[in-house]
Amino acid sequence: MAETVTDILIVGGGPAGMMTGITAAQFSPHKKVLVIRPETDAVIPCGIPYIFGTLGGTDEDMAGRAPLLAAGGQLQIGTVQQIDRVAHTATLSDGNVMHWERLVLATGAENFIPPIPGTGLEGVFSIRKDYDYLDTLFSTLIPQIKKLAIIGGGFIGVEFADEIRKRGIEVHIVEMLPHLMQAAFDPDACAAVEKQLRAHGVHIHTGARVEALLPDSGGRRVGQIQIAGQEALTVDAVLIAIGTRPQVALARDMGLTLSRSGGIWVDAFQRSREDPNIFAVGDCAHKQDFFTRKANHAMIASQAAAEGRIAGMNLYGLRQLRYNAGSVSIYASEIDGLAFGVAGLTERQAELEGFPILVGETRLPDHHPASMPNTTEIYCRIIFAADSLQILGGQILGGATTGELVNTIGLAIQMHASAPDLASMQFGSQPRLTPSLHPLVAAAGDALRRHYEPLHPCVTGDPHA
Amino acid sequence: MAETVTDILIVGGGPAGMMTGITAAQFSPHKKVLVIRPETDAVIPCGIPYIFGTLGGTDEDMAGRAPLLAAGGQLQIGTVQQIDRVAHTATLSDGNVMHWERLVLATGAENFIPPIPGTGLEGVFSIRKDYDYLDTLFSTLIPQIKKLAIIGGGFIGVEFADEIRKRGIEVHIVEMLPHLMQAAFDPDACAAVEKQLRAHGVHIHTGARVEALLPDSGGRRVGQIQIAGQEALTVDAVLIAIGTRPQVALARDMGLTLSRSGGIWVDAFQRSREDPNIFAVGDCAHKQDFFTRKANHAMIASQAAAEGRIAGMNLYGLRQLRYNAGSVSIYASEIDGLAFGVAGLTERQAELEGFPILVGETRLPDHHPASMPNTTEIYCRIIFAADSLQILGGQILGGATTGELVNTIGLAIQMHASAPDLASMQFGSQPRLTPSLHPLVAAAGDALRRHYEPLHPCVTGDPHA
Repeated sequence: MAETVTDILIVGGGPAGMMTGITAAQFSPHKKVLVIRPETDAVIPCGIPYIFGTLGGTDEDMAGRAPLLAAGGQLQIGTVQQIDRVAHTATLSDGNVMHWERLVLATGAENFIPPIPGTGLEGVFSIRKDYDYLDTLFSTLIPQIKKLAIIGGGFIGVEFADEIRKRGIEVHIVEMLPHLMQAAFDPDACAAVEKQLRAHGVHIHTGARVEALLPDSGGRRVGQIQIAGQEALTVDAVLIAIGTRPQVALARDMGLTLSRSGGIWVDAFQRSREDPNIFAVGDCAHKQDFFTRKANHAMIASQAAAEGRIAGMNLYGLRQLRYNAGSVSIYASEIDGLAFGVAGLTERQAELEGFPILVGETRLPDHHPASMPNTTEIYCRIIFAADSLQILGGQILGGATTGELVNTIGLAIQMHASAPDLASMQFGSQPRLTPSLHPLVAAAGDALRRHYEPLHPCVTGDPHA
Repeated sequence: MAETVTDILIVGGGPAGMMTGITAAQFSPHKKVLVIRPETDAVIPCGIPYIFGTLGGTDEDMAGRAPLLAAGGQLQIGTVQQIDRVAHTATLSDGNVMHWERLVLATGAENFIPPIPGTGLEGVFSIRKDYDYLDTLFSTLIPQIKKLAIIGGGFIGVEFADEIRKRGIEVHIVEMLPHLMQAAFDPDACAAVEKQLRAHGVHIHTGARVEALLPDSGGRRVGQIQIAGQEALTVDAVLIAIGTRPQVALARDMGLTLSRSGGIWVDAFQRSREDPNIFAVGDCAHKQDFFTRKANHAMIASQAAAEGRIAGMNLYGLRQLRYNAGSVSIYASEIDGLAFGVAGLTERQAELEGFPILVGETRLPDHHPASMPNTTEIYCRIIFAADSLQILGGQILGGATTGELVNTIGLAIQMHASAPDLASMQFGSQPRLTPSLHPLVAAAGDALRRHYEPLHPCVTGDPHA
């Protein structure tokens, strides 16, 4: 069996692994950087729903290897079967052995399949971040579908529903909670998303628990979905999109510490507990919440890539230039012109954690005057801690700038901005590009007004008289 | 003569005055708030260029009085002629006298007309923020123009040029500096703006000094513009857009201290030097630069409105919830799909101030994958102080999200973010709404790489071996 030597071995080639490789190659140009993964070609994870509608094919959503190669890294297709963390070796499924100096686990997550009958039937599928798998899905399964049920009303379920309905397929979303998107948004934003989907013909079943998937007359293929207390719904395919679990088989076999929620334990520099030469990044790594240090289950590509940059920079001693401050949870999406995004805690989450909260809200047009072309209303709600006035989170419903507005809220959270900071914030305004008043400034002002009223209910004194 | 009494008198009804009135009415609900101004109707300042193209008329750019009235404030049309700051009275041009408890000067700015011959000819005009003036311009002068020269290649000149050329008018921009927009952007961004304007048929004369405006054969109307060292250019109208000067006649007569650059001296809460009951906001008030405390000449509506919010909140004792940290200078604009914006210092300005600088750059698509519809390239350049690694400024060339990206840079500056803060920044990414990598994260990473190289030119040691 062949033995090869690398300096940095990265196991897994999704956003976390690739970004680790790119960053490592840039910051340690004299080291050999190798990413190894089983998939020949990878896709851009957040682009997957759009393969089936807007993009019109898998080839339009390829995640290229060019940035890794340009940075000086290498990519190898293969499967790592076993790792010896004392000998610093990895054994591949073809028997070859690889020696490494630094190891980065970026093994990702696997879809969670609920323990109900029928999930093994033909036509029941979930989304995997694998080009070949998705291409087969696109070219063979999807064209046969007339009526699809999606189990799970989170981001993937909602985005997939909106794209797939554009192909003329009847779509039903089945969600156990009272609202779609409820884990991420406060109820009014959820209701706006539901309204938009319904306007496009998507059927929504909330507060609905799936009891079983039933076969069709042939007995091998899914034919019905049974929701508790309802008549069975006839479908010809079912997408399961209720979340993922960290893929940690290699890490467990190596004896690395796992967190109680199942991810690989990592410090603020993505280093394992056992060995500062072994790192973990992305969906397979445990995530702490920015506010509470509790587990945060935000398994998203942007977070994964951020962790890859942190690890890639700190492989050979701590640069202290990048570290993981805990997951803020920043998301956005869009359904046919209605964009919605969130950063940090929702009102409900903040209250559950025990924060006395102060909420500020605003509605304004995203261009000014509102008579400018393509003007959409922005709704912005910011949640502050009532006593310290620090920002805890924010939600936006709006148009094309929603994603960047949510990122601005994310930065405000990470920089520990307060309501006075945001109410005093300077901003640029331009008719074609922005509102005349920045939504964060308006919402922070609204919050301060609420804060101020009970303190000074009746201003009559004149300190300078 | 009638005598009336108000609690809060605000002189001037542009963005600064109106925002002061709205905020004061909200935060001091038991006080009588009165805004007085000469214009019957006001317009939204940054919307003015669009009256002449995109909006197609002055009525589409009205700045309503509804928000002031809804907050409980009042608006009176009139001209204040004299103010007695000891007696706390204001005398109007109709002889009526008004008593006040707090006074806010929001008297704005007047256009600077250069000392060259011919500026008094018919057909030579500048932009005033007055509905009646602009409506006359739109309905009488503009329809007669076939060939327009614009003196001044800043934001107003550039935006006006792009809108007016849509009416089939031949437009020439004459700028004294080597590039358009040079006061706000580094040269590569300026060059992109010039290229975009030229592609739309706008003629650009840079490094060009205007010597005189010459009359046509009738002798009363402008017929030619004489640029030094060139043949005179035949035109039938000239727009002068080279900046404004604070309008401080009332303040000077009252004996308020003015700054060396001509604005009313104000503290961080917009209070005059002489009397904490007298405030000044907007274009008439002196502005300090966020970084240097030198004079900053950013006379823009968003800054004016920000100062109005600060004053409105602090009229009766300092709330310390909002204060003026100095002008960051945040601007953006757009020419037919090419948007460009800036916050803070440019590379050139930072160097002139004596900052050793570190620059990070990136180019990436504003959606991902780049095959998504309506995808535009974003160019992002961030300037950091080389030693402290603090952010000093940033420039964006891009698409629809440019304005909000510039505002994110603005927030980073105001929160004193460092390159490591930004390189470690978490963000959301969504195919339809954002790049897969946040431009600030990418540019900060690029800067850190440059910072890091000379410190650790050859990493070979292994601290954990």
